[in-house]
Amino acid sequence: MEILTGSVGIVETKYFSFEEKIRLENGLDFGPVTVAYETYGNLNENKDNAILVLHALSGDAHAAGYHSPEDKKPGWWDGIIGPGKALDTDKYFVICPNFLGGCKGSTGPSSINPGTGRPYGMDFPIITVEDMVRVQKKLIDYLGIKKLLNVVGGSLGGMQAMAWAILFPDALGSCTVIAAPTRLSAQNIAFNEVGRNAIISDLAWNNGDYYGKDLPARGLALARMVAHITYLSEESMHKKFGRRLQDKTKIDFNFDVNFQVESYLRYQGQSFVDRFDANSYLFITKAMDYFDLHQKYGSLAHAFKDSKCKFLFLSFSTDWLFPPGELKEAARTLMSLGKEVTYCNIEAPFGHDSFLLEFEHQPSIIKNFLKGISKES
Amino acid sequence: MEILTGSVGIVETKYFSFEEKIRLENGLDFGPVTVAYETYGNLNENKDNAILVLHALSGDAHAAGYHSPEDKKPGWWDGIIGPGKALDTDKYFVICPNFLGGCKGSTGPSSINPGTGRPYGMDFPIITVEDMVRVQKKLIDYLGIKKLLNVVGGSLGGMQAMAWAILFPDALGSCTVIAAPTRLSAQNIAFNEVGRNAIISDLAWNNGDYYGKDLPARGLALARMVAHITYLSEESMHKKFGRRLQDKTKIDFNFDVNFQVESYLRYQGQSFVDRFDANSYLFITKAMDYFDLHQKYGSLAHAFKDSKCKFLFLSFSTDWLFPPGELKEAARTLMSLGKEVTYCNIEAPFGHDSFLLEFEHQPSIIKNFLKGISKES
Repeated sequence: MEILTGSVGIVETKYFSFEEKIRLENGLDFGPVTVAYETYGNLNENKDNAILVLHALSGDAHAAGYHSPEDKKPGWWDGIIGPGKALDTDKYFVICPNFLGGCKGSTGPSSINPGTGRPYGMDFPIITVEDMVRVQKKLIDYLGIKKLLNVVGGSLGGMQAMAWAILFPDALGSCTVIAAPTRLSAQNIAFNEVGRNAIISDLAWNNGDYYGKDLPARGLALARMVAHITYLSEESMHKKFGRRLQDKTKIDFNFDVNFQVESYLRYQGQSFVDRFDANSYLFITKAMDYFDLHQKYGSLAHAFKDSKCKFLFLSFSTDWLFPPGELKEAARTLMSLGKEVTYCNIEAPFGHDSFLLEFEHQPSIIKNFLKGISKES
Repeated sequence: MEILTGSVGIVETKYFSFEEKIRLENGLDFGPVTVAYETYGNLNENKDNAILVLHALSGDAHAAGYHSPEDKKPGWWDGIIGPGKALDTDKYFVICPNFLGGCKGSTGPSSINPGTGRPYGMDFPIITVEDMVRVQKKLIDYLGIKKLLNVVGGSLGGMQAMAWAILFPDALGSCTVIAAPTRLSAQNIAFNEVGRNAIISDLAWNNGDYYGKDLPARGLALARMVAHITYLSEESMHKKFGRRLQDKTKIDFNFDVNFQVESYLRYQGQSFVDRFDANSYLFITKAMDYFDLHQKYGSLAHAFKDSKCKFLFLSFSTDWLFPPGELKEAARTLMSLGKEVTYCNIEAPFGHDSFLLEFEHQPSIIKNFLKGISKES
């Protein structure tokens, strides 16, 4: 196995803003909008080596490298992006924006509403995955890129990638969809609804008006805890924790943390509170729930009928949040439309989080797919 | 298929109390204890036709029949218990007690602590599944029954049934374990931990001291919502709700209930608050987390080595909370010890809740197993 270890080094987040309002799917005109984004590698003269990376629910624009030499962890997809890696920054110009509605620099519920001078909170408009993509298109236009070599994302990032192929068929040469659904299932919606209820049940949430006051930390931590269970497989939880006790040799009959898995979950919940905005969580999970390419376009086939790019669909064997079967089915539908689709189900034990953790097969599959694309272009 | 429809009619809950303290597994002596229980059918002269039915996390002693002619719903296992049914009350004397730590008449956290004259709350002792079973044994002794014909339960009820076979090998002729684990998995513990955190994060919980005040209703409803998702299969949620909208024809871009599954979950959470005590939820889920026949006895084989009864193990194909593989493995272990074990995995779409909902195969399997047992005795 080829080991891909190059780093993009120290990077910084950039900001792009536009004043004109965009028409959202809910019918409202919304603006101004700021997009936080990072880029790695260099845009070539023809501006035809750009790859757009789209992040998942709790991600951000910081996909690779470090913000400072003191950083302990690199960006969230550093295993994939860098010189010599799958998204090879010696060849490609990689762009990763924070999505609309987020809380990592792009306009979202915690941003200042110019109409009131205060954070939007619940006055932020309900947005869709497609709205996120329309904002990303503005960034790509601003960067002077007519056609992206590739759009790629995992989970909610993969949902955005599909929306790109549908909304802007001329603006991308290929589309890599990883561990994503073509619509959220009843079970997916149910888990999201529990998370949202955890937040709005927290008295500190205060109808979304909590900025500068007590944060709805308990609710957001709970939402993260329950979601986090869905990101792991039963198998990976078993291997990682089993029934091992936390800092003790036998159960001690109290309500403190007994098992390692309890400690881990509490930590996940708590640390999420320090880095994520509860209102963003509400708006983004709602955008996910609304995602339904079947219903919106009449059928999946109809949704993709005008798409022109090549597709790579990757799923993971132990992903029970967005099970492999759905992307396989989608691949079949696209093939029946005469589209070029490569589908691969990767055996990996990490559950849904495999798109962030699987570096044995995923990188080389992505790399080889891109090789095929760039040869042609 | 034989249709089993007899009803035990109007029944009432009885109470048995004992003053002497019992030694709990945590080392404390605890008492007095009251046990709420119901019985259906008649105990024969030899007192050898008694079946003990054990309920799950949110169950109670009211397993069959109606408390009054106005009741809209019968007891929780009315499909199984009654004249001519699987647990045939024309033949058997069926006993169903509410377990220790519960909130349906048996001593639990909401009971009055005789030492203080106030509800126990968090002064209630941490209990185990085995402690519940020791209390049930007192009831069986009180009823003058030396040997139960059968002990049967689903989910946590099945865990108790296994503990009966291990703790009191001479006191039962057979043991029916349905949709139960031999130990909780890391994922099981994780879901329970989220539920407990939802409760203790609710400010109204007030360290368990909320009786006669505001109840931790939001926390308990959340705990129930997340647990309820684990009781259903993805397939059953898809069939039951899919992405159908609640009382509307298209998504309306707000945070009200949009999808039927959201409405259903909120209803499940809310109605649970009206019938269950939050502290009981804490103590009972903790007892479940501590359940581990492998660790406690060194191995599963060692746990059951002195058991003398016949076993029926039933699992359900779509149960992802307590997946079928575990009972199958346990059946194999018991067989290798020379025990008589029948194992059956029932194809059913309802997930873990199948033990409450599957009436096509489950009743006849239980009925035939009991027929074999009673012929011999």
